[in-house]
Amino acid sequence: MAAPTVPVVPVPAGDGAACCGPLTGEPLSAEAAATLARTFKAVADPARLRLLSLVAAHEGGEACACDLVEPLGLSQPTVSHHLKVLVQAGLLTRDKRGVWAYFALVPEALDALSAVLATPARALAGSAG
Amino acid sequence: MAAPTVPVVPVPAGDGAACCGPLTGEPLSAEAAATLARTFKAVADPARLRLLSLVAAHEGGEACACDLVEPLGLSQPTVSHHLKVLVQAGLLTRDKRGVWAYFALVPEALDALSAVLATPARALAGSAG
Repeated sequence: MAAPTVPVVPVPAGDGAACCGPLTGEPLSAEAAATLARTFKAVADPARLRLLSLVAAHEGGEACACDLVEPLGLSQPTVSHHLKVLVQAGLLTRDKRGVWAYFALVPEALDALSAVLATPARALAGSAG
Repeated sequence: MAAPTVPVVPVPAGDGAACCGPLTGEPLSAEAAATLARTFKAVADPARLRLLSLVAAHEGGEACACDLVEPLGLSQPTVSHHLKVLVQAGLLTRDKRGVWAYFALVPEALDALSAVLATPARALAGSAG
């Protein structure tokens, strides 16, 4: 019954979204675009999107690697690879406890990426008739 | 002085974000993840991120292809390729007028992608102390 809560953890240095305001703000510099594209590449994969979604859906917003292999239908090394990419992009944290690693969302990183794509259009739509 | 306005246009059938709720909602199906990944792939490129940003920054939220080549520092065929990918992903519309094509953002598509990544964490952070 408990609502999933996501621990607030420091965003690793690799986080690419912190660099940039919304796309609909100032034109993006080449450097900012390169940084941002790296983070979007981490997201732009079906297995990694499903992993983010599975981790988020787990109780406590944290999932053991052992619980992520079966739902994806991929081999454990493949799942480990995708989890590593997400950790390196700053979208998941990894915490080794005993034999298993536990992964949790970094909500600030997802929200920062989300903010890059958001437009003011939705807000305007109400008043523009 | 006029604030940029973005014309509301129908989202092409290729729009991949309309399929899916937020990642932090229900676990994503394999099909939804595949569709969504295609759209994120369109965004996950430095040149295409800059094109979206340049189009958005243009007066009226619409830009002539002829104004997009120089700021990117890429060849015209390369810019045309990236614009085509963005149109196919449903993130830009293309309108041929005379010899030039004009490109405009599809704010609904960007907002839908943005909503996929947004987490409820920011809202919770205020009350979780």
